[in-house]
Amino acid sequence: YQLLNIPARRVAIFGGTHGNEMSGITLVNLWIKNGKEIQRKGVETKPFITNPRAVEKCTRYVDTDLNRAFTTENLSAPSGDDLPYEVKRAQQINEIFGPKGSPDAYDVIFDLHNTTSNMGCTLILESSKDHFNLQMICPVLLTEHPLLKYSTSRSVAKHPIEVGPQPQGVLRSNIFESMRVCPLTIDGLCCVGLEFPPCSVDVFRVWDKMDYPRDTNGNIIAMVHPNLQDCDWEPLNPGDPMFQMFDGTTVRYEGVGTVYPTFINEAAYYEKQQAFVTTRRETLVAGAIKKA
Amino acid sequence: YQLLNIPARRVAIFGGTHGNEMSGITLVNLWIKNGKEIQRKGVETKPFITNPRAVEKCTRYVDTDLNRAFTTENLSAPSGDDLPYEVKRAQQINEIFGPKGSPDAYDVIFDLHNTTSNMGCTLILESSKDHFNLQMICPVLLTEHPLLKYSTSRSVAKHPIEVGPQPQGVLRSNIFESMRVCPLTIDGLCCVGLEFPPCSVDVFRVWDKMDYPRDTNGNIIAMVHPNLQDCDWEPLNPGDPMFQMFDGTTVRYEGVGTVYPTFINEAAYYEKQQAFVTTRRETLVAGAIKKA
Repeated sequence: YQLLNIPARRVAIFGGTHGNEMSGITLVNLWIKNGKEIQRKGVETKPFITNPRAVEKCTRYVDTDLNRAFTTENLSAPSGDDLPYEVKRAQQINEIFGPKGSPDAYDVIFDLHNTTSNMGCTLILESSKDHFNLQMICPVLLTEHPLLKYSTSRSVAKHPIEVGPQPQGVLRSNIFESMRVCPLTIDGLCCVGLEFPPCSVDVFRVWDKMDYPRDTNGNIIAMVHPNLQDCDWEPLNPGDPMFQMFDGTTVRYEGVGTVYPTFINEAAYYEKQQAFVTTRRETLVAGAIKKA
Repeated sequence: YQLLNIPARRVAIFGGTHGNEMSGITLVNLWIKNGKEIQRKGVETKPFITNPRAVEKCTRYVDTDLNRAFTTENLSAPSGDDLPYEVKRAQQINEIFGPKGSPDAYDVIFDLHNTTSNMGCTLILESSKDHFNLQMICPVLLTEHPLLKYSTSRSVAKHPIEVGPQPQGVLRSNIFESMRVCPLTIDGLCCVGLEFPPCSVDVFRVWDKMDYPRDTNGNIIAMVHPNLQDCDWEPLNPGDPMFQMFDGTTVRYEGVGTVYPTFINEAAYYEKQQAFVTTRRETLVAGAIKKA
């Protein structure tokens, strides 16, 4: 048995890590006003708006992406007024819900995001060793990668949920409702005496970032190909259409073997030079979970 | 016969009136680089980015909505550095493509917009007397209204095109392609000798603005009902579901008679207190068009 801190004692639910992702913001604000839906006996559940200034402006961030700000460097920087707003905020969040990596950190943080990609409801996992999250029942994107590092908000504790498609600044009832079931997963966390047997789980491990074709000035000169648009999690094989150039020609995928693209045409990733992420499917064995 | 300035001598195509509406921005930038697609004999066609600073930041506007800035007041305001960026820009645009209401104004301005609403390809028309635009072949939204005033960019000349659904900051090939046919409509403008017989056209005339239900602090407490989401241009009858409150209850439409909602759940209209616009269908007679 893998011993984990189950039942979890302290669970945080973050909304507004990106100020224009409305589902999480709306849900967390609802739960701040009335926490009944998320309260469970023996568990402290804390709904929290992580980037209130960006929420107020309905923009992804004010100075820099909060969801990439939780680096060791930022968290240990001497505090001061000259720090970017989101770095200051990351330090505050780390104080309340961390410190990152310490035994005092919250057991679980759900960070509620939405995307313009057609990803459905996705759990994003930072480590293949995270047996708790592997036991969840939705597509799993595994961002563990030797080079690509993210430094996300949820990294303060030990676990985000991404739901799409939904435009930035828009609240759609279908996305809202599928995110609202988040508290149900808390039930799994606080069921004293409940055990989860070991099982195998298919995950999508981040493989590579694919940028849009660009001209020498950095301007994009192609779009995601209509055959690929909205086809998150579906196989992309060598020779399949990938981009449609503005002159009408097709750019095909030339990699080796089948990949599973996701975050296809996410609005916020144009500035990150990313049209989509390729992933590879793999099967992980999730250790059993027994109360510690 | 209604005599119009046909063939048009000068046609402008605007992109980036809202800096996060990517289809028009991308197309206009393409046409600035290579105008072949939009050139027609005897017609001066000018592609133009109207709000370059907002485009650079990928945001709707910098100081104020450019597409509401073309008021007589703004256009006649003494120029100065203290004016909002978009008001200065409106004055410059009015100088180049107007002056608004004068014989020197461009004959036609196509203003390319996209929306998060499921509106398809829509022509927006400011006056029921605009026989030229009535002769076009896509859904027509007529914004002529005794109280609701818009002061849009295209109002400098005499004619916008709105295509959706597409999230802000995203370029989708299907929306891009359906907007790219814009130059075809120029053909109608410059066909010397071509005549259009009179015909009747169904239009959707703006009737009313519907706001989201809000609490006493102005926060929204409901979403567009799933039965209404994406149902732009479809009939909404008294008793039909309109909003879904966060507590799960349904708010029904209580107006008198059938309306046709559009701009349903447009991202940019949350700040304008508008969940959707109701319209009424009516039939207009488009006068014949003959070369002047």
